[in-house]
Amino acid sequence: MRPPIDFYFDFSSPYSYIANEWIDALAARHGRTVSRHAILLGVTFQAAELRSPVAHPIKREYSLRDFARSARYEGVPFVMPDAFPIPTQNAARVYWWLHDERGPAEAAQWARSAFRGFFVRGIPLNDAAALKALAAESGLDATGAEAAWTDPLWKDRLKRASDQAITAGVFGAPFFIVDGEPFWGNDRKPQIERVLASGPF
Amino acid sequence: MRPPIDFYFDFSSPYSYIANEWIDALAARHGRTVSRHAILLGVTFQAAELRSPVAHPIKREYSLRDFARSARYEGVPFVMPDAFPIPTQNAARVYWWLHDERGPAEAAQWARSAFRGFFVRGIPLNDAAALKALAAESGLDATGAEAAWTDPLWKDRLKRASDQAITAGVFGAPFFIVDGEPFWGNDRKPQIERVLASGPF
Repeated sequence: MRPPIDFYFDFSSPYSYIANEWIDALAARHGRTVSRHAILLGVTFQAAELRSPVAHPIKREYSLRDFARSARYEGVPFVMPDAFPIPTQNAARVYWWLHDERGPAEAAQWARSAFRGFFVRGIPLNDAAALKALAAESGLDATGAEAAWTDPLWKDRLKRASDQAITAGVFGAPFFIVDGEPFWGNDRKPQIERVLASGPF
Repeated sequence: MRPPIDFYFDFSSPYSYIANEWIDALAARHGRTVSRHAILLGVTFQAAELRSPVAHPIKREYSLRDFARSARYEGVPFVMPDAFPIPTQNAARVYWWLHDERGPAEAAQWARSAFRGFFVRGIPLNDAAALKALAAESGLDATGAEAAWTDPLWKDRLKRASDQAITAGVFGAPFFIVDGEPFWGNDRKPQIERVLASGPF
């Protein structure tokens, strides 16, 4: 079995959501699996002295247009949430809780639910009640999920994941590492496809 | 005749160089021409509160790797210049001098020569003697070129081009406008191709 594709994401990143919708099928076509890393973009932005694209004048308007257009280009449903960006540490801690306690498959299922919840249905992941309801609807133990996102254990797990990302060279999301080769952005899909098909180019 | 594709670039932008190598053929395949706008990225960066990708820790290392890899992906020769980024106002003023006095075709020829000079042969476009030699080698009147880049007329022409770019929503390069639809980045090629083939999506 060839090594998995490392995929770093933040639940508040539209391009991460879009990539989350295509990465598994792309990996499977090339006999790979996906190793997901929920991180906090705020932490990597700070390390790289960056800000969100929507925090910049002029770039903001373009980015809002490009999020939706890039989703249409990939055939992925997308509705820009009213509140954006939002803090996503609770959803990310639930991700790591599931990952470590129930395994990567259940965590990946939660990643899909949370991303679609925010970027299709506009569910504010930073609202505790809304997040709990989404967890219940996704078949999780909602009380357990809430306990997880307030537990220092999972707070620390997320912190370590974000720190590890920075060590691995991650400064934005989505970020992929394929056989040691780093790729930043939903728009690196064709390059990832080429490296999976025929190796480094 | 359908309207031309607007293409904004800075001579110090590796992704602009790569795009400059494919944009004409892509446009021609769809019955379009290219309207080139030499600008100064420093001016648009300031307006959008941005910095060069290589000015950011962590992102710098990735970007240097991605410049070369993106060139290989497009099959374009690329050698990272020792000094980078460099001020490119003189090369850009020569561009506008040619554009307005000799027409877009000669200006486009100069754009190709200057880009290849910098990103393949490492010619420092910010060095007056080197730029003069490149102009002569490219079949231009080198003395006329030097006179152009010191002339307030062409300084002002470049300034107006950069200001017009900001008004048009440009914050980085390469930047394309196709039938009113803005696209930022060499990596938007597939989306540009789709909009040229079948209209807005």
